[in-house]
Amino acid sequence: MKTYSGVIGRSTQGNCHILDLTGELQTMVHDSQIAIGQLTAMIVGSTGALSTVEFDPGLVETDLAVAMERLAPAEGRYQHEANWPDDNGHSHVRATFTGPSLALPVVKSRLPLGRWQQVILLDFDTRPPHREVVVTILGN
Amino acid sequence: MKTYSGVIGRSTQGNCHILDLTGELQTMVHDSQIAIGQLTAMIVGSTGALSTVEFDPGLVETDLAVAMERLAPAEGRYQHEANWPDDNGHSHVRATFTGPSLALPVVKSRLPLGRWQQVILLDFDTRPPHREVVVTILGN
Amino acid sequence: MKTYSGVIGRSTQGNCHILDLTGELQTMVHDSQIAIGQLTAMIVGSTGALSTVEFDPGLVETDLAVAMERLAPAEGRYQHEANWPDDNGHSHVRATFTGPSLALPVVKSRLPLGRWQQVILLDFDTRPPHREVVVTILGN
Repeated sequence: MKTYSGVIGRSTQGNCHILDLTGELQTMVHDSQIAIGQLTAMIVGSTGALSTVEFDPGLVETDLAVAMERLAPAEGRYQHEANWPDDNGHSHVRATFTGPSLALPVVKSRLPLGRWQQVILLDFDTRPPHREVVVTILGN
Repeated sequence: MKTYSGVIGRSTQGNCHILDLTGELQTMVHDSQIAIGQLTAMIVGSTGALSTVEFDPGLVETDLAVAMERLAPAEGRYQHEANWPDDNGHSHVRATFTGPSLALPVVKSRLPLGRWQQVILLDFDTRPPHREVVVTILGN
Repeated sequence: MKTYSGVIGRSTQGNCHILDLTGELQTMVHDSQIAIGQLTAMIVGSTGALSTVEFDPGLVETDLAVAMERLAPAEGRYQHEANWPDDNGHSHVRATFTGPSLALPVVKSRLPLGRWQQVILLDFDTRPPHREVVVTILGN
């Protein structure tokens, strides 16, 4: 069995900024020389998440943010903000719902995503942070 | 290490149609001859999702759809629909929230799901499409 | 390749009780003697979920519960409860949204979580149950 590990580092603007990681992940799969296997990616930190979406500006800049606001409004009241000098209670709630990690199959030396399906990093925090996504790939 | 890969193809009715994939996945685990390992399943496309639920008609035909409607109403306004000749902005938002993939442990040559816990495909699109779920299994 | 499997058993209070599993999972990774690989954890049953969060009492005892209530109110009407002698329709809906399992990378013999990022079990059921989380780890 082959194993591969790597880290994707990206600067974001926070506040529901969504970035497309598909290219970097496909390159990692290629570099791993794994034909059949599994990729696992995890965002480090508790105010970001990973998922997939069609990377259309309408969805990525507007529609997902509207639904996130419905689930956990930025201006809502959060006990987290009463306990700590933080303004990001909504960021934590959104991240826990969306999920910190993603497992994807590797087949024929690539992630078999759809043509209109991109892997995304969602940064819900209120400050523009540097983000790290840790990746491992296993297989033959 | 053993590896296994396969694809489940299913026709759906779209519009929050939910299908039970448990039987096909357990058969794949059996066929893989893997006793201890991990299964990863991913739906191809950005308007469907995978999760688990008790496959009760009340939950599957009504209750989940009501909550999805609360999160991303079908008749809401979506920038995605302003940019493209599409009526499925809500489908994309629901899919990103629910998640495109699922990683499950394999123990004693099966997925150790609960008796009332089934693996489901959720199709949020507005047209009845054909869906593919790509599966890989790794282990010994 | 090495494989490891184990089960975490925990009593919960139900009703959105959230427990920190990080220590037990990091111990499992250590015991597996796997340096690079992948961990998959799955809660058995369809009214619980796994995710990550900063394990702050404000988030864990209040803020996540408020958002869950917004998505699927405990006192809402559920077809599941019309079909069965159950009062936990909201528990099922919340669990399907949050997701039953988590795949995490293993790097340098540990889960590379952030300092303020803990792996959590969320128990949405209405009765205090005993919960089992099945874990497998693969790698070298």
